[in-house]
Amino acid sequence: MIEFGDFYQLIAKGPLSPWLNTLPSQLTAWQKESLHGKFKMWFNAVERLPLLQPERLDLLHSVSANMQIPLPQGQREGVENLLRNLMPWRKGPFSLYDVEIETEWRSDWKWDRVLPHISSLAGRTILDVGCGSGYHMWRMIGAGAQLAIGIDPMQLFLCQFEAVRKLLGGDQRAHLLPLGIEQLPELNAFDTVFSMGVLYHRRSPLDHLFQLKNQLVNEGELVLETLVVEGDSQQVLVPGDRYAQMGNIYFIPSAEALKGWLIKCGFVDVRIADVSVTSMEEQRRTPWMTSESLAEFLDPDDSNKTIEGYPAPRRALLIARKP
Amino acid sequence: MIEFGDFYQLIAKGPLSPWLNTLPSQLTAWQKESLHGKFKMWFNAVERLPLLQPERLDLLHSVSANMQIPLPQGQREGVENLLRNLMPWRKGPFSLYDVEIETEWRSDWKWDRVLPHISSLAGRTILDVGCGSGYHMWRMIGAGAQLAIGIDPMQLFLCQFEAVRKLLGGDQRAHLLPLGIEQLPELNAFDTVFSMGVLYHRRSPLDHLFQLKNQLVNEGELVLETLVVEGDSQQVLVPGDRYAQMGNIYFIPSAEALKGWLIKCGFVDVRIADVSVTSMEEQRRTPWMTSESLAEFLDPDDSNKTIEGYPAPRRALLIARKP
Amino acid sequence: MIEFGDFYQLIAKGPLSPWLNTLPSQLTAWQKESLHGKFKMWFNAVERLPLLQPERLDLLHSVSANMQIPLPQGQREGVENLLRNLMPWRKGPFSLYDVEIETEWRSDWKWDRVLPHISSLAGRTILDVGCGSGYHMWRMIGAGAQLAIGIDPMQLFLCQFEAVRKLLGGDQRAHLLPLGIEQLPELNAFDTVFSMGVLYHRRSPLDHLFQLKNQLVNEGELVLETLVVEGDSQQVLVPGDRYAQMGNIYFIPSAEALKGWLIKCGFVDVRIADVSVTSMEEQRRTPWMTSESLAEFLDPDDSNKTIEGYPAPRRALLIARKP
Amino acid sequence: MIEFGDFYQLIAKGPLSPWLNTLPSQLTAWQKESLHGKFKMWFNAVERLPLLQPERLDLLHSVSANMQIPLPQGQREGVENLLRNLMPWRKGPFSLYDVEIETEWRSDWKWDRVLPHISSLAGRTILDVGCGSGYHMWRMIGAGAQLAIGIDPMQLFLCQFEAVRKLLGGDQRAHLLPLGIEQLPELNAFDTVFSMGVLYHRRSPLDHLFQLKNQLVNEGELVLETLVVEGDSQQVLVPGDRYAQMGNIYFIPSAEALKGWLIKCGFVDVRIADVSVTSMEEQRRTPWMTSESLAEFLDPDDSNKTIEGYPAPRRALLIARKP
Repeated sequence: MIEFGDFYQLIAKGPLSPWLNTLPSQLTAWQKESLHGKFKMWFNAVERLPLLQPERLDLLHSVSANMQIPLPQGQREGVENLLRNLMPWRKGPFSLYDVEIETEWRSDWKWDRVLPHISSLAGRTILDVGCGSGYHMWRMIGAGAQLAIGIDPMQLFLCQFEAVRKLLGGDQRAHLLPLGIEQLPELNAFDTVFSMGVLYHRRSPLDHLFQLKNQLVNEGELVLETLVVEGDSQQVLVPGDRYAQMGNIYFIPSAEALKGWLIKCGFVDVRIADVSVTSMEEQRRTPWMTSESLAEFLDPDDSNKTIEGYPAPRRALLIARKP
Repeated sequence: MIEFGDFYQLIAKGPLSPWLNTLPSQLTAWQKESLHGKFKMWFNAVERLPLLQPERLDLLHSVSANMQIPLPQGQREGVENLLRNLMPWRKGPFSLYDVEIETEWRSDWKWDRVLPHISSLAGRTILDVGCGSGYHMWRMIGAGAQLAIGIDPMQLFLCQFEAVRKLLGGDQRAHLLPLGIEQLPELNAFDTVFSMGVLYHRRSPLDHLFQLKNQLVNEGELVLETLVVEGDSQQVLVPGDRYAQMGNIYFIPSAEALKGWLIKCGFVDVRIADVSVTSMEEQRRTPWMTSESLAEFLDPDDSNKTIEGYPAPRRALLIARKP
Repeated sequence: MIEFGDFYQLIAKGPLSPWLNTLPSQLTAWQKESLHGKFKMWFNAVERLPLLQPERLDLLHSVSANMQIPLPQGQREGVENLLRNLMPWRKGPFSLYDVEIETEWRSDWKWDRVLPHISSLAGRTILDVGCGSGYHMWRMIGAGAQLAIGIDPMQLFLCQFEAVRKLLGGDQRAHLLPLGIEQLPELNAFDTVFSMGVLYHRRSPLDHLFQLKNQLVNEGELVLETLVVEGDSQQVLVPGDRYAQMGNIYFIPSAEALKGWLIKCGFVDVRIADVSVTSMEEQRRTPWMTSESLAEFLDPDDSNKTIEGYPAPRRALLIARKP
Repeated sequence: MIEFGDFYQLIAKGPLSPWLNTLPSQLTAWQKESLHGKFKMWFNAVERLPLLQPERLDLLHSVSANMQIPLPQGQREGVENLLRNLMPWRKGPFSLYDVEIETEWRSDWKWDRVLPHISSLAGRTILDVGCGSGYHMWRMIGAGAQLAIGIDPMQLFLCQFEAVRKLLGGDQRAHLLPLGIEQLPELNAFDTVFSMGVLYHRRSPLDHLFQLKNQLVNEGELVLETLVVEGDSQQVLVPGDRYAQMGNIYFIPSAEALKGWLIKCGFVDVRIADVSVTSMEEQRRTPWMTSESLAEFLDPDDSNKTIEGYPAPRRALLIARKP
């Protein structure tokens, strides 16, 4: 049984306290009703991992932890085996006591594209919507954030996050809650809200933008990253059944169209900070994620197209402010 | 107090009966909490109208009722004055005992564009989402429908509908419920569902299409009319604050894009039946709707553009089937 | 699947119509979640019974139906076998086409004690709380009631009632709903409310009295029958684990104490109409109810005491009016 | 605005943590909807009181706080005036920096009757249902309890409690929540539960006993004090409209009857520890509670009877254990 008592204590006083009106009953219901068939196996792996206090910790340039003297080989292998129980690993990489978790995504590359464009995270309270394994939350802490809260309904990601947390000494500056954003009340309490790789999964992208806005304090900053197509402000692709093999893709606007949507939803100072095509080096099959990846999702004869004939994945980063 | 008991009796047995699980409590709450400030005045006008049994009734080519011998002038004027209490009248026209209600819209012209393209309505049970005054419901009855149920949350429209109903002799083949579509359970019970002039008001157009589908029986027909822009299947306009002076306009896709959305939502046999530019003869200021209308919403120097510079209103009619 | 559509139509207009706010969703939930393991078997028996239109019907002195010429023996035996599938039968007796259902209780004797004391039922709308098989409802109809509605959460009783109804030609003047009284809204709509044999099963007798009051119209009549002990207005027995072998017995007041409770709850004109000791002829084992009955519940050496040593069952009838 | 964040932190981990599923939303709703007209005035008085750290504190033999050197007269008078804003004071007495709050009740006398009979409170977590001003909670702390939580829906009592707490240095070992017991989930978490002066106000005394049981840990102790009448186990008084001028009095059993009810509800080791008649010295009018008190509630000619002719107040103390 996952315990959220530490988190409740953390938010019981201060601007996040209204969350207690809904959060505990949601998480209690989640524990009772919604657990994935493999959850017990995953959670056992987390429980059996040792709580290690790293003597060397880097969250600024990577997510790396180690001791001055390497762990004994037997213990290192034990850790590695437990972490392998939590496969597939999508967001990373993590370097933990010489166990190198090579994840499907080079999330560090994305972070390097994001960080130069956003306001300093120093001292900020942050929400990361669709946080996956939580990789970026640790980097936010490395960049000086006071508190990073991630939400993601996938239970495997919660277990991956708690596993990494134990190997980082039980750090309480980051927390992951197994929720979707539609389950959050309007907290108006976060200094920065990240939504990276989420919008194209939403049936209603405008509602998603309003939900993000409702989490921000006034003057707070939204960091939005999503799939885009090329073109002017009226270009919007809604693919058919599948896009790059994925079944739940709805709206893929152009960056300009997305900028217009943000303005429509009441954001200001909207900037398109970056647009880049995802490379097969950034998203790939690895020993820690052994099923198909980008290489298999593209047209084998024309890597500018997905296997369904749509434009290959291109991602834009937009920054906006809640007035 | 509006009574819905007749309607409850009508649906208590048969495929619409699951609606009783939610409808009465919604309408009771509506009566208690949600009434518009002018509702009492409107409803008084309805109550004071006489229940007239027309000796001549045409629902096939118009909505017209009359006696063999015209009403005495005093009574005719009384009826007219009560109907004027229910201004503005948007959808029509109605000809009731020589009172000619000239409405903002020539909804009969729209009906003439729609009817040739759709399956025969004979014997059908029909839902009309966003039905306004209910004009088209009477035309559906005229075209042979067994039962037409309209939903529209605007209370003025409910009063207009009930006023017309009284002057049509209390006809029970059409009913209007003051609800939005998001308040309906998944009835899967209507043979034809109309959504005309609604989709561009929805923040989430795909959710709207799914909601419409959930009201249809298998093999049932959707009749969808909405604003469109010109262009290919990736053209989608999301206007800024206002479009043709209206503040709550979200997605205006091209007809081709909309066709793709319907397919995405699981409809089949999707056809673009008609596209036409709205003329200033079809939507205009009248003595029964005295505020601004289309003429004022267009650029005075270029009637191809709205006053905000967007393409002038163009409307497409799409027909689709639930498999 | 039991259909309640006829009942919904019956109450859709008039003073019972607020019941539609809650009843259909309760009964839908009941159909989905709460069915007894044997319900299907019971309900099959009901479905296989013929719908018979009796040529001779007596509801005034008994519940008896027959044809001018007796049913063929084969059909009579078929009916009897199906009715035996619905054992045990507790409240009756019923005489149906020469099938004599001898029930545990001589409910007709109780009715003979009740009827002389209460206001005429002619034209009344009646609620019978804890109605069992519905025997008394048919007698209420026989006494001139316009509509008798019984509630009892036991599903066997619903099936017994529907079986009898079919053999009475599908009579729609009586209806049984599988509910407890705590599930009813405050209808304030019944002319007479019966609660016979219920109060001693309630953990909170005062709340029961308030609930009964909330069902009555102003000036409506309550007919209350329950177990009592002898003694003055401060005598109240709360038995231990069991009373006469029953496990869910709470308060057994004296008739005088009960009278005081009724006054406390706001009833007026409270009368103790009858007090009688239950005889072993009135409650007994029969071929239609083959498990233990009163004879086994009393002390074999002293029939003035239950097997647990409490006073033997004594029942009082009180009549009261809602002001 | 009253802040409950400290309390939420206190219970976020450990056996009381399931309370977070319901408590914050209840208290938020309470703050929004339910505040008494005078609450603001009362709460202002609390806010304007100084937070004093007593140098002499006695919770063992009384509730008394003082400094080594008395407060300056002006400050003492300020404190007294603010405390007078919170009149009427019913449970006490309190001696706070030479302000002597003479309350209607000598709750210390009751405590002296209770304490010898109950299990040691050392280290216990305690619930006090109907705690009033919280006097007994401070005495529980004085007797070694680890944590005392009181519930009482009367908002004046919450303000009196918070006022006293400030003058006791902000002690966090006792907390008062403005709730009725029917709002609590089944916590099964308290070592001792007190219900003193509550049962006769409950329309359903058995439900009250079950609710108390549902708050106790296994082997936990119930301390129950309530009005009783003399007599054997079948004596139960349900007074008419009023008893000793109070309008909401339901069941007054004999001590023996009450013992039977506790056994019926599944308690064990039930003892009648004390029965005593309330004296006019124990409940009286004082300068801090200036309306009518016991002397006015009794028959002026016979102090053995209430003014309505019922037996004068007699109170029993019962101790029981949850198995």
